[in-house]
Amino acid sequence: MKRTLINELNSMINERVLIQGWVHKIRKLKSISFVILRDRTGLVQCVIENTAMEEKNFRLESVVSFEGIVKEGKNSLNSFEVQVEQFEIINGTKEELPIEINSEKLNVNLDTMLNNRVLSLRHERINSIFKIQNLIVEGFREYLTSQGFTEIFTPKIVSEGAEGGTEIFEVKYFENKAYLAQSPQFYKQMMVGAGFERVFEIAHVYRAEQHNTNRHLNEYVSMDLEMGFIEDENQVMNLEEELLKYILSKISLKGKKYLSILEMEIPQINSTIPRMKLSEAIEILKNKYGKTELKGDLDPEGEKLISRHVKEQYGCDFVFLTHYPRRKRPMYTMPCGENETHSFDLLFKGLEITTGGQRIHRYEQLVENMRYKGLEPENYKSYTAIFKYGMPKHGGLAIGLERITAQLLGLENVREATLIPRDRTRLVP
Amino acid sequence: MKRTLINELNSMINERVLIQGWVHKIRKLKSISFVILRDRTGLVQCVIENTAMEEKNFRLESVVSFEGIVKEGKNSLNSFEVQVEQFEIINGTKEELPIEINSEKLNVNLDTMLNNRVLSLRHERINSIFKIQNLIVEGFREYLTSQGFTEIFTPKIVSEGAEGGTEIFEVKYFENKAYLAQSPQFYKQMMVGAGFERVFEIAHVYRAEQHNTNRHLNEYVSMDLEMGFIEDENQVMNLEEELLKYILSKISLKGKKYLSILEMEIPQINSTIPRMKLSEAIEILKNKYGKTELKGDLDPEGEKLISRHVKEQYGCDFVFLTHYPRRKRPMYTMPCGENETHSFDLLFKGLEITTGGQRIHRYEQLVENMRYKGLEPENYKSYTAIFKYGMPKHGGLAIGLERITAQLLGLENVREATLIPRDRTRLVP
Repeated sequence: MKRTLINELNSMINERVLIQGWVHKIRKLKSISFVILRDRTGLVQCVIENTAMEEKNFRLESVVSFEGIVKEGKNSLNSFEVQVEQFEIINGTKEELPIEINSEKLNVNLDTMLNNRVLSLRHERINSIFKIQNLIVEGFREYLTSQGFTEIFTPKIVSEGAEGGTEIFEVKYFENKAYLAQSPQFYKQMMVGAGFERVFEIAHVYRAEQHNTNRHLNEYVSMDLEMGFIEDENQVMNLEEELLKYILSKISLKGKKYLSILEMEIPQINSTIPRMKLSEAIEILKNKYGKTELKGDLDPEGEKLISRHVKEQYGCDFVFLTHYPRRKRPMYTMPCGENETHSFDLLFKGLEITTGGQRIHRYEQLVENMRYKGLEPENYKSYTAIFKYGMPKHGGLAIGLERITAQLLGLENVREATLIPRDRTRLVP
Repeated sequence: MKRTLINELNSMINERVLIQGWVHKIRKLKSISFVILRDRTGLVQCVIENTAMEEKNFRLESVVSFEGIVKEGKNSLNSFEVQVEQFEIINGTKEELPIEINSEKLNVNLDTMLNNRVLSLRHERINSIFKIQNLIVEGFREYLTSQGFTEIFTPKIVSEGAEGGTEIFEVKYFENKAYLAQSPQFYKQMMVGAGFERVFEIAHVYRAEQHNTNRHLNEYVSMDLEMGFIEDENQVMNLEEELLKYILSKISLKGKKYLSILEMEIPQINSTIPRMKLSEAIEILKNKYGKTELKGDLDPEGEKLISRHVKEQYGCDFVFLTHYPRRKRPMYTMPCGENETHSFDLLFKGLEITTGGQRIHRYEQLVENMRYKGLEPENYKSYTAIFKYGMPKHGGLAIGLERITAQLLGLENVREATLIPRDRTRLVP
């Protein structure tokens, strides 16, 4: 007999069905028991005679197979239930469950949740986070594909770091030393120059950062894009604005079930996202909030306060901060005057979720800017070579998938938006 | 003025346009020159007066911006051309091109092609390979999403190898030793058990194989799927059959332009893919082709010959080989009798493009099978733990993206189906 999914049962009243899933809850009455079965599509109440049940090791979270008749019958879950006539335990639970999955909220701390990831993910409030994350990723791809972008897969084992700094993992690559990519920066620029013009990649990137905060992961999913034939970074911001509108409306439309489980509403972008020079933001933070210590960048508190200001002033949860100082941005960033750059960050509800900007497209300027940043152009020959043979003006951005998910769903920690996180101490599961 | 793409020009006859792209070809006549401009959508012939051109450094592959009028006029490319009135060199080519991009075929050897990847990818025959690869990936995602699969992102930095063997890259993870994932095997199984039931992932995996053949890469894209609540591996093969039909018909439909550039036709699967026990295949190879040396697996020649046999006998380019011996398959593979397993490979035109099968879902059997394979269950505790709390029967497979692309398009070497390959010697670009 073919398996029927629980969300298909409502059209099968009085029919015999085979359903399979996990034992979510058991309530034993005098002669019968109510067993709530869970599969990937939902929950259903099933009725079994106690005499039949007692023969078997019938425990919570066991995987079972039920054959029975779908009967009308109002209960807290559905307007029907299943009268079980035959059943089989496919794989019984062996040990006491370390966490309680059938409570309304999963009341465990973050470590317990992550140590028991396979179990915590079975909770619908946890599961729903990743269903929403799926929609973000799908929306990103769909919008960019519709705009003529090509998806690319670029190497994560690299011979040089793209973002500078020492926060880079080392790999033993046969007799050579290699590194894990901090970003696909060089390669996405190459692919613009290779004639694709517009490319995107959704893949892991690696940062060997020592600090273990609620907004850092050592391995995270970066949604990257890069586009050629732009005038400046404003076109990249324009694209991100449309991209985010598309993603947010997709979630509102297709994520209803999961949003209601999470008791969340998704903000929409009604007109445009405010754009503000970083220096202006720093002035506002000084004058309005008495924050005087900021030098060329915001700290986490500054990000929260400027987001609050923008929300009050413009009613928007997003803000683009632009013109970051040259000394704070990587060597590939297009300078703007002596001290600033054609660059931006996007803050969403007080957290940076995007870094982007225009890149240098001329060979001489790139080499010069490398020297300005104290780098030796000779070490980047396979990268600089591409600028000798017709590189268009271009720019791009990267959105941190776990961060945008966490901010959208009001999660305290980016680890909650990661199936299996890697951080300073977490290498298993 | 807004940029117009070349494939939009046919609806703009007699209008003034701005086009931007690369200088593909220059043909100088007495007083005018024909310049063929290339952008991501195609080629167009442009007419410029020589007096205007001579002032500037007008070289092949320079990035330029043309303003002019679209005029009717038959030429080898289109039924129109652009009379250029104003132009700008956005970024001029600085050096002699190391390879010739505007020839009909790119006549360079593989090393030259890969060393000059940004240039070789500009050739439409090379570029088209990745447009088809995009359709494979899109088709894979679309079909599985329609079948209730959830996309997952699982860690590539891991504490233990999933596939056994020593072919694994080592990463320095702070004070610990870690590895690059050989496959998402453990994690995709976990996510089945975590209640998603059906999951897929498209991501890089890493194999530290010493050999440098035309079918091996040290970093490749694995299209993985895993599904719960199956009876046995036949359902996984059934799914792959439908999945491949979907992908092939998508390519035929949406890839016409690129297939015609590549002068390729895509095979379709008309009925079902033949399934044959590996032992039967070995018998056929012995009796029909005199290959007597095969023991429990095929060599590359054996793969080619059995594919030829199946093509002759059943008219199909694909064949499932099943029931691989237990000693040849990883410890998570479901045994079938004493010596065989519920497993399969899929060969396509003589090359293995998929490995799959049913997995062990019971804790005791898994631990026992680890010991049979000479592994210490204690070393896999975070993996075996998931089998204690209700793991459904499940199975899955992985398709190598570069391999299926190469086989579909008749490429000699999987590196040709990789934007930036990593192999035994290749760590740049």
